[in-house]
Amino acid sequence: MTGSGVSLGIGDDCALLRPRRGEEFAVTTDLCIAGRHFRLDWHTPESVGHRALARGLSDLAAMGAKPVAAFLSLGLPRELANPAGGWASAWQESWTARFLDGLLALAAAYKTPLAGGDLSETPIPLADIVLIGSVPAGKALLRSGARPGDLLYVTGSIGGGAAALPHLERLAVQQKARASGLNPARIPKGLRALLDRHLSPQPRVAQGLWLRRRALASAALDLSDGLSTDLTHLCEESRVAAEIDAALLPIHPGANLQYALHGGDDYELLFTAASATRIPKKIAGIPVTRIGRILSPRAGRPTITLLTAQGPQALEPQGWEHFRGAIS
Amino acid sequence: MTGSGVSLGIGDDCALLRPRRGEEFAVTTDLCIAGRHFRLDWHTPESVGHRALARGLSDLAAMGAKPVAAFLSLGLPRELANPAGGWASAWQESWTARFLDGLLALAAAYKTPLAGGDLSETPIPLADIVLIGSVPAGKALLRSGARPGDLLYVTGSIGGGAAALPHLERLAVQQKARASGLNPARIPKGLRALLDRHLSPQPRVAQGLWLRRRALASAALDLSDGLSTDLTHLCEESRVAAEIDAALLPIHPGANLQYALHGGDDYELLFTAASATRIPKKIAGIPVTRIGRILSPRAGRPTITLLTAQGPQALEPQGWEHFRGAIS
Repeated sequence: MTGSGVSLGIGDDCALLRPRRGEEFAVTTDLCIAGRHFRLDWHTPESVGHRALARGLSDLAAMGAKPVAAFLSLGLPRELANPAGGWASAWQESWTARFLDGLLALAAAYKTPLAGGDLSETPIPLADIVLIGSVPAGKALLRSGARPGDLLYVTGSIGGGAAALPHLERLAVQQKARASGLNPARIPKGLRALLDRHLSPQPRVAQGLWLRRRALASAALDLSDGLSTDLTHLCEESRVAAEIDAALLPIHPGANLQYALHGGDDYELLFTAASATRIPKKIAGIPVTRIGRILSPRAGRPTITLLTAQGPQALEPQGWEHFRGAIS
Repeated sequence: MTGSGVSLGIGDDCALLRPRRGEEFAVTTDLCIAGRHFRLDWHTPESVGHRALARGLSDLAAMGAKPVAAFLSLGLPRELANPAGGWASAWQESWTARFLDGLLALAAAYKTPLAGGDLSETPIPLADIVLIGSVPAGKALLRSGARPGDLLYVTGSIGGGAAALPHLERLAVQQKARASGLNPARIPKGLRALLDRHLSPQPRVAQGLWLRRRALASAALDLSDGLSTDLTHLCEESRVAAEIDAALLPIHPGANLQYALHGGDDYELLFTAASATRIPKKIAGIPVTRIGRILSPRAGRPTITLLTAQGPQALEPQGWEHFRGAIS
């Protein structure tokens, strides 16, 4: 056996994953909770499944890791309306099947087998996704490698994931949407591209692999919490400061500067490279934009400076952040 | 670096785990939900944390895998009584700290670093635990290797995990226990050993490693759902039948035959070995008992036959089983 992969899947006490010689495994877990990470009346079940997996694939992309396997722990409520018919009502079965459809379609697109999981009864739907990827030992893209003078890049466009939210809210009211989300057929055509940025984000796995294989990036992470928050993470881990130029940001059509700076859910890659490194305009078909540079940390200098037409200003992290506890 | 282990822990997009040459990784996930897998008024927070990790370690033990790392996704409710004080009330902080104490104490005992995780707000406490272990490629103990004529063994004693439940229920009423479980100091001395079987089960990691290293077992799994259910799983995966002798079962003091046959939560190992293989009376300090043998499947023969003083009878799986869905 030469490739890394799943040597034993669902059905035993554990799944078995066989690494290729010289590779290590990247592991990430993401908990998605109804009412917090998705809404039953906004998101179709397919979108909930897609987004749950996309979050983990995006973490692998940020490390330059190749997906090997996914594990799903799924919690679903018992439908009280159907006590005689076993645990699953028709709605429940349909929601679960559609959730798995969305998840498995994305898994197939990224050649990521579902290798195991767990299922339980919970008061509200939730999904915890584990993604495991492979990367040559010592070669993963880390958050900690940015150096003063490096330039700062972002893939694709930003702000669209969050700019979709007020539209989702309005359409859900208009459609009187219930527990299976918006009806995609009733989403106005002009809004579909924007809403797709939120409902079915595409993790930048190919772009992360490309950067890692050529060893061009000094640091990388994915934009899940919003640029201001995620760039702060990168600066903290690399012990540097940064400046970004508002005029350079690739703002998604329909979004604005605030969404681009602080909105989450974009799942683009934010990465740094030495100034002498030539970064192409596109990687694997996705545009890449230089948005700023890395600075030395200095007393009195903010961690992030935003350059605007009105002059430089300090940029505080205002992105989506879960409450902080002992482990986060 | 020669040993398998965590090469990058908490703080980046993913953790990195480096396998030793020739090893593969065993991966298991277990979802623990308040009200279903534990009760806030019965289980101390330490016990909830201990049991959550023990479930995963027991799955590794059943494969003969050595623990490498654990990942924790923790969901906790916002305390409505404390809207002004941030997300964490004193109870919440204390519950979480005690939960982590219990989890990390067991993790330390089994040299299993917590390498990552996720934290979110949920209506009720829940924990999804991922355990990753290492095993020489192709050498894991599987459920599927039992052959007719093999003998059937169990480690330790069985039935205690479930026999503790009525005592927990009674003591919780007596103690007027609330959301931090029973007061351990008020558990009668005569009951402590039995209740410990439930509150702090010891996964049989050393025993699983011992069996795997000597290649003595033809199949193995852990007794989490109860003997009748777990032995059915083993028979299904190995395509065999089995008979067990009621008089041979190592019933835990305070339990009875019904708890031993159908009670879950024992976290002992059930394994098979060829009849010519010499299995010692103890493995790594824990008694091992022969309880039956593997038979050929045959039309009209039940999957499991229980030999009793009143003659043989068919044994149906009646153990703890979660509702079944697309992935279980």
